[in-house]
Amino acid sequence: MKTCTVRFDPGGVEVRVAQGETVLAAAQAAGIYVNSICGGDGLCGKCRVILREGEVSSRPTALLERDEIRQGYILACESRVLGNLHLEVPPESRLAQQPALAQEIALRFGRVVPFRPEGRPYAFDPFTRKLFLPLPPPSLDDAVGDLERVYRGITSHVAVPAMQTGLFNLRRLAGMLRDSGWRLTATLGQRGKTMEVVQLEAGDTSARNFGVALDVGTTTVVANLVDLASGEVASRKGTYNSQIRYGEDVITRIVYAGSEPAAAERLRACVVRDTNDLVSAMVQESGIALGDVTGIVAAGNTTMIHLLLGLEVANIRREPYIPAATAVPVVRAAEVGVAISGRGLFCCLPGAGPYVGSDITADVISSGMNQSAELSLLFDLGTNGEVVLGTADWLVCCSASAGPAFEGGGLKCGTRAADGAIERVAVTPYGTLTYKVIGSGKPGGICGSGLIDLTAELFRVGTLDKAGRFRRDGGVPGLRDGEDGPEFVVVPAERTATGRDITVNEDDLAIFIRSKGAIYTAADTMLSHLGFSFADVQRVYLSGGFGTSVDIGNAVVIGLLPDLPRERFQFIGNGSLAGARMCLISREALAEAEAAAARMTYLELSTDSRFMRDFTSSLFLPHTDIERFPTVLRSLGKSAP
Amino acid sequence: MKTCTVRFDPGGVEVRVAQGETVLAAAQAAGIYVNSICGGDGLCGKCRVILREGEVSSRPTALLERDEIRQGYILACESRVLGNLHLEVPPESRLAQQPALAQEIALRFGRVVPFRPEGRPYAFDPFTRKLFLPLPPPSLDDAVGDLERVYRGITSHVAVPAMQTGLFNLRRLAGMLRDSGWRLTATLGQRGKTMEVVQLEAGDTSARNFGVALDVGTTTVVANLVDLASGEVASRKGTYNSQIRYGEDVITRIVYAGSEPAAAERLRACVVRDTNDLVSAMVQESGIALGDVTGIVAAGNTTMIHLLLGLEVANIRREPYIPAATAVPVVRAAEVGVAISGRGLFCCLPGAGPYVGSDITADVISSGMNQSAELSLLFDLGTNGEVVLGTADWLVCCSASAGPAFEGGGLKCGTRAADGAIERVAVTPYGTLTYKVIGSGKPGGICGSGLIDLTAELFRVGTLDKAGRFRRDGGVPGLRDGEDGPEFVVVPAERTATGRDITVNEDDLAIFIRSKGAIYTAADTMLSHLGFSFADVQRVYLSGGFGTSVDIGNAVVIGLLPDLPRERFQFIGNGSLAGARMCLISREALAEAEAAAARMTYLELSTDSRFMRDFTSSLFLPHTDIERFPTVLRSLGKSAP
Repeated sequence: MKTCTVRFDPGGVEVRVAQGETVLAAAQAAGIYVNSICGGDGLCGKCRVILREGEVSSRPTALLERDEIRQGYILACESRVLGNLHLEVPPESRLAQQPALAQEIALRFGRVVPFRPEGRPYAFDPFTRKLFLPLPPPSLDDAVGDLERVYRGITSHVAVPAMQTGLFNLRRLAGMLRDSGWRLTATLGQRGKTMEVVQLEAGDTSARNFGVALDVGTTTVVANLVDLASGEVASRKGTYNSQIRYGEDVITRIVYAGSEPAAAERLRACVVRDTNDLVSAMVQESGIALGDVTGIVAAGNTTMIHLLLGLEVANIRREPYIPAATAVPVVRAAEVGVAISGRGLFCCLPGAGPYVGSDITADVISSGMNQSAELSLLFDLGTNGEVVLGTADWLVCCSASAGPAFEGGGLKCGTRAADGAIERVAVTPYGTLTYKVIGSGKPGGICGSGLIDLTAELFRVGTLDKAGRFRRDGGVPGLRDGEDGPEFVVVPAERTATGRDITVNEDDLAIFIRSKGAIYTAADTMLSHLGFSFADVQRVYLSGGFGTSVDIGNAVVIGLLPDLPRERFQFIGNGSLAGARMCLISREALAEAEAAAARMTYLELSTDSRFMRDFTSSLFLPHTDIERFPTVLRSLGKSAP
Repeated sequence: MKTCTVRFDPGGVEVRVAQGETVLAAAQAAGIYVNSICGGDGLCGKCRVILREGEVSSRPTALLERDEIRQGYILACESRVLGNLHLEVPPESRLAQQPALAQEIALRFGRVVPFRPEGRPYAFDPFTRKLFLPLPPPSLDDAVGDLERVYRGITSHVAVPAMQTGLFNLRRLAGMLRDSGWRLTATLGQRGKTMEVVQLEAGDTSARNFGVALDVGTTTVVANLVDLASGEVASRKGTYNSQIRYGEDVITRIVYAGSEPAAAERLRACVVRDTNDLVSAMVQESGIALGDVTGIVAAGNTTMIHLLLGLEVANIRREPYIPAATAVPVVRAAEVGVAISGRGLFCCLPGAGPYVGSDITADVISSGMNQSAELSLLFDLGTNGEVVLGTADWLVCCSASAGPAFEGGGLKCGTRAADGAIERVAVTPYGTLTYKVIGSGKPGGICGSGLIDLTAELFRVGTLDKAGRFRRDGGVPGLRDGEDGPEFVVVPAERTATGRDITVNEDDLAIFIRSKGAIYTAADTMLSHLGFSFADVQRVYLSGGFGTSVDIGNAVVIGLLPDLPRERFQFIGNGSLAGARMCLISREALAEAEAAAARMTYLELSTDSRFMRDFTSSLFLPHTDIERFPTVLRSLGKSAP
């Protein structure tokens, strides 16, 4: 079989692949990230690369404009290598260097008011805890075994119903006790219902105990290094989940995992490497050693946790949607492949169902809704969209299958909330459209919060009608005829990073409206099933990267969020990370997370007839039944004739 | 450095060693067993080998007779290799092929009446249990995770407060469930207070579940393969503990373990190999696979268990005599190095102190004294001598430091209870000495039970006085002057396996009397401390290989056992193995063993002033205070003037 050399710029990375291989596969083999939301099905049009030299065979596509094709643009997934190639990955197809972390966004906007400041409501009692034990040396009158002496020392400090340890520690114990003058530090870790003596160290090392809170997202992996002696965050790092090169969302990853024997292991290796990279970077930054990190608490959607642990994911996608485990037992970090202290523990928070994972459990814990007498609603709007409803007594959850529109997926100029994304849009009283870009550069696309603003503003000023179609007769200028019908120019080419216009057309809006409708209807369906309406909801929590930068007023205008008094809404930032961190520093929180996950009833919407019926009614701005949005109705009455 | 070739016969094994190395070290390097009770200190005179060719440098020794030296006898530990050697290991220095197992001895004598037949008083509920789970396949209405489905299946059969499993099982679970049509077998193992799902197998394998009960003795390692589906013993095997080549008793092993960096590991490797050999032999004999063996329950003295697990033993010997652990946590057999099912569990029963190990806990469980309202006394007379006193409410134990005399150690013609050992001796009414040999061959020496009989009979007929000295004026013929004073010829050279006379002299008897005195005084001291006397003891249990072949009447005559009505004595055979087997087939028994060990108070006799005083009084036949032995007093009154 003939092989060809493919060179990718910038970077000059070369790879040899078989003739006939797709350019996307070549990029994956080279470890080069090329955007690909659909995972290589030729549907999203995101995997644009520029052919500088060489020959490919490309299928015809409507996702590239004639002008672009003339400039050499090809879709990586639809083009096959015929000979040696020289390709350029343009900025819009690359991964931004560092994702904008939800927390950082939150700080920038200054709107995150933690409902329950961490560490206060739950007792400080970390998942892995170090206990310095100055033990009395043995004598003929006190001649218990070394291990019994250590256990006695531990139980004099901590009430432990059951304790275990391994041969590893036991084999070193006698020497360590005598060499250290009977002064050692035991690291205790929670392992299900038992307490494990994870490790033993000579002398007093109790001040050197760190843990990692980990949020394993489909798009990003974000971690906090936490000083478990104080509960303070010592370092924060985030990175893209490098599985992205094999597909942007959960479903494409599952499909890829089943595509060939080595694929699942490849996905596992990606996220394990990402995690190790984050942990080492944080450890270096804090000037500590990997051995000082004794535990990890991770949250993530069910598929991400399965891929990280090397569990079978295929059944998550097949009806009746069964994960290998909803609650994964605590294991050693080394078994997962994550390098911390040799015997350090790895805890994945429990999830509630195939599409409501431990990230949502963490959200719930982070919001405190699991302890509240009030009826609360929680939205986690990431790559997927999950909704939780409940009180201290019961919890119901569902996955809205919102699609990746809020992350910019499926939209021509959609992008993630990273540097260069338009995150806020407004129309000034003088009719001028203004926008705000993440970072200091020119805009490259528009992210979820920007799209909410844009849709709401265009609707408000009359450029958009309630069906999501452009009206020539009103609103702000910028409307023109594009290849796929009328389109609105948000930023003209001369002011963009890509040198191409940033535009939105009616197809983009239709996708976006389906997403917002799915989320609203999911919440509405849950309330109806339980005999409630939105008016009964006392508190609405918004979680996720997206959920910290959204303008609530505009989200209500487009019918994404219910029309409730603004004071009932609460941003909780990256609730998945915050919840993992709470469980890392408090075994009480961890027990609450387990209880909450066990209490959460999963509602499958894909087979729910009420959901399907109501969803259709939600595909309007804000809704077919506008009476549901009285403040929107009033403001429209004021601003439009 | 010059190396020399040393050849050992019979067998023709050759080894190359450095010039100047001892012959004993050469034998150890060659894997050849040469008796060595003192562990190479030149004290016991047991490591006799015959130099056939070559040159050694030997230190002068009083432990070989002139005639023997002329025949080429050398002491292996006291002779250094000067050039190439050809050596012969004579029968008396070799290890008998197969030790006489306590149980076999018991069967031969037909005297073991198990006080509590196994499996009856405790519920049949094995340490590792297989549960066949035909699970309902998932549906949209029953969409719990695979692991949760398995857990639900388990808890519908067994009440489990806490359950755990590892990534190993979890990674295979989804495929196994679907490939097997939702029919699998879970192996559950008790691990401290939690239940572990040890392994998962497709289909119904619940009929194929085996466990091993293991008695790790200083001299022998004995095992039973138990069918855990029925509780029946499928196979029994025993072997010498191959650590013997590095020393005969616990103390010499501890000394050897500390002699050089690799020594402890060498000892560990010996007993691990012995165990693996036994397990494979039993598995082969029973036509099952190693993977069908899911658990091991082991009992042994503290030092043996430490060496097996690779724990530090040095502190067991140093005051205040501290083991690394008295109760060792359950670990994986693979961690110990024993090959059974990959994830099979290894449980060491808990001990009570540095010199009262889990073999004694097993004895107690096997006797049932821990559940009895009666005051009971238990003697375990092996290489060491341990005594337990108590009722269902309390237990006190001690180690008598009896020395190895009952195993033949320290006595010129002493030997273990193996083929060729004189195990019974009697003087007929006509004044003739008769004896019984283990196996079908000629006698090679005299073992503990034989020595008890011999001493009692010679004392009864007046050949021995109460101080253990020979009297020329009475009894049976056979007395003569030896190199070390008067000696009694038990068997003349022409009728022995070694071609040398089997004799006993006053030094041998002094050693033996010290041993019997230590054991009697240990029991007496414990009783006194608690305000009891022997008359209060309702039941006396005799355990250990030695404890099944001893003649109780003769043991009372010499003052080893108290003078109590014969019906109070009970042989329990190899109580260590029987107790381990009970705990293997009943988690209730295992819990009882843990409770009994925790309840057992260890009495250190080496610093007990009452013991030291009373010990001196016991160095007579039967005792200084003969009133303590009324039936002996009466029978002496009848038979002697």
